[in-house]
Amino acid sequence: MDVMNQAAAIERRGGSVVHMEVGQPSAPTPASIRAATARALEDGRIGYTQALGTDSLRARIARHYAQAYGVEVAAERVVVTTGSSGGFILTFLACFQPGDRVAITAPGYPAYRNILIALGLEPVAIEVGPETRFALTPELIERAHREKPLAGVLTMSPANPTGVVMTPDAIAEVAACCRKLGLWYISDEIYHGLTYDTPATTALAADPDAIIVNSFSKYYCMTGWRVGWLVVPERLVRAIERLQQNFSISVPYLSQVAGEAAFDATAECEAIKAGYAQNRAFLLKALPEIGLGDFLPVDGAFYIYLDIGRYSNDSMAFCRSALEEAGVAITPGLDFDEGRGARTVRLSFAGSLAECEEAVSRLGTWLRKR
Amino acid sequence: MDVMNQAAAIERRGGSVVHMEVGQPSAPTPASIRAATARALEDGRIGYTQALGTDSLRARIARHYAQAYGVEVAAERVVVTTGSSGGFILTFLACFQPGDRVAITAPGYPAYRNILIALGLEPVAIEVGPETRFALTPELIERAHREKPLAGVLTMSPANPTGVVMTPDAIAEVAACCRKLGLWYISDEIYHGLTYDTPATTALAADPDAIIVNSFSKYYCMTGWRVGWLVVPERLVRAIERLQQNFSISVPYLSQVAGEAAFDATAECEAIKAGYAQNRAFLLKALPEIGLGDFLPVDGAFYIYLDIGRYSNDSMAFCRSALEEAGVAITPGLDFDEGRGARTVRLSFAGSLAECEEAVSRLGTWLRKR
Repeated sequence: MDVMNQAAAIERRGGSVVHMEVGQPSAPTPASIRAATARALEDGRIGYTQALGTDSLRARIARHYAQAYGVEVAAERVVVTTGSSGGFILTFLACFQPGDRVAITAPGYPAYRNILIALGLEPVAIEVGPETRFALTPELIERAHREKPLAGVLTMSPANPTGVVMTPDAIAEVAACCRKLGLWYISDEIYHGLTYDTPATTALAADPDAIIVNSFSKYYCMTGWRVGWLVVPERLVRAIERLQQNFSISVPYLSQVAGEAAFDATAECEAIKAGYAQNRAFLLKALPEIGLGDFLPVDGAFYIYLDIGRYSNDSMAFCRSALEEAGVAITPGLDFDEGRGARTVRLSFAGSLAECEEAVSRLGTWLRKR
Repeated sequence: MDVMNQAAAIERRGGSVVHMEVGQPSAPTPASIRAATARALEDGRIGYTQALGTDSLRARIARHYAQAYGVEVAAERVVVTTGSSGGFILTFLACFQPGDRVAITAPGYPAYRNILIALGLEPVAIEVGPETRFALTPELIERAHREKPLAGVLTMSPANPTGVVMTPDAIAEVAACCRKLGLWYISDEIYHGLTYDTPATTALAADPDAIIVNSFSKYYCMTGWRVGWLVVPERLVRAIERLQQNFSISVPYLSQVAGEAAFDATAECEAIKAGYAQNRAFLLKALPEIGLGDFLPVDGAFYIYLDIGRYSNDSMAFCRSALEEAGVAITPGLDFDEGRGARTVRLSFAGSLAECEEAVSRLGTWLRKR
């Protein structure tokens, strides 16, 4: 956020910034999704829906699991949410009691930690690294659980900020470990659809009791619509329905219409993804050439998580200089990893190839002069 | 909710139900609001906005306070929220610590209680009645505070379910009492705009430190858009911005566009309100004629809160019978008042005059036969 404010200030005074910090697609929402919404808008009746979402969207999401993963999901287990953010709030409140400990990864998405704390829960950030491909393992979970019992485990694949995809085995092992220890397993699958070599597996394939958090924001380019979904075990549905009735009443109606149309926008979404793939291929080749080669293979999402330790051990200062001196906005790793993020940065390639090329050119010149 | 499910079941088997239970306008969102949204939809870029809302909507809401109430509000103090629900969550989390006690009224909007409890806070329901026109008073607040210290007070005017509007003096007294005791004063003004004889005053006129919760849902017929706003003291803005960044990222973009257009839809909104006024005038005359005359003057909103004690002391059973036998859906008072709601029901007149007439006719025949 500070990066964004500083970037806006530079632009206001006429400076040029290449935006490699943004966590959202630069492409507009596909036209077919917008057309479906426009039709609903003409109808005019834009009221509350059932708290769990419209029947047709829940059914459509359930069908998506059969089509995309070959996993049977009953529509009754699908909960439409106000973005994945809304899904986390519902899940945390439904599954946990005040003081409960929930394992997350460091590096990881910073809102997990902040939402958990705001709801009176305790995030247990477990450091992960290249040795486990930045994934949690049963060993890591069991060690944290021995220190003081956990109540749940939350993983994300493809991950923000690392772009790493957990293998089907890695997911199955975490799921089995959670089942053995009696912990809720929450799998954030918001970047599903955005993988380049190996597809991502849903945790539901490993364990029907896993709680899936997903959203239309990323693959479908719908961040501003605030619509996502959960798949939850049947025994949680009624509790989540009551929470949603009180916390949201219902999810924005037009966004639910749009969500349903999104599943038919595959051609447009795949074209956008092809752009990311092009950006990714360029960066994987070009970044090492300018001395920024220290990153894992980027399996998914639209992020590259770089180790900049050979240049700086203060990623905040590094990002500030990159912005001020090179005109490239990138995100300091401290947002994702309080311990080790001082030597990492996240670079997003959700923009255009031209932006990626310009960023590399500017960063290269700047690094040579440092 | 149970009423709605039962009503839906009757309709599925071909029965006819007059819906007097709904808490939302039956009119579609005004055409000019939808037209503005359609234009934004064509643009296509529907992304995250600033967490506090778009600058232009915040400025427009600030201007509304000058125009509608003659109260100066800086745009920086306006927070766009995901409906008033989102506003309550942000307010409660920003103002209170776990275990804090917050005074609310009984009868009152049931989600207050449920959200407070889910967030680890303690709702203190203070019974109010006709002797104070269903409003909290300094005496009532001080008595509850002496029992065990409160941290905040929440009032609603016009109120759901009673329709009662607090006088400017009543609001000023509550505000002064809160200031004296060092309590947050939260004023839910979601039904502002919907008053029939006396206009409602904003608590900001009494105390610039009052926290205002409002929404486009009711007067502007925008329930399904999930967009509302807060006005908060400057010292709370940063905390609320952080909470919103983590809990919502931002508010649905199209709904923010629509909200801005709503302030120019006054002619359409006033025409819809004229319909409510007609319904209200009819019901105030017709209900006593069928033996349902025990209610306060209906100052605002679109609800009549009836005492049905001469017919039943089980409002749930009364409502079930009214639905099954008369085909009229109304809401049992227990939803609003755990203590005394067994002898009250809420009747909504947000539908058409024809529906109100049909409801009275059906209820009259039914009551005569009981």
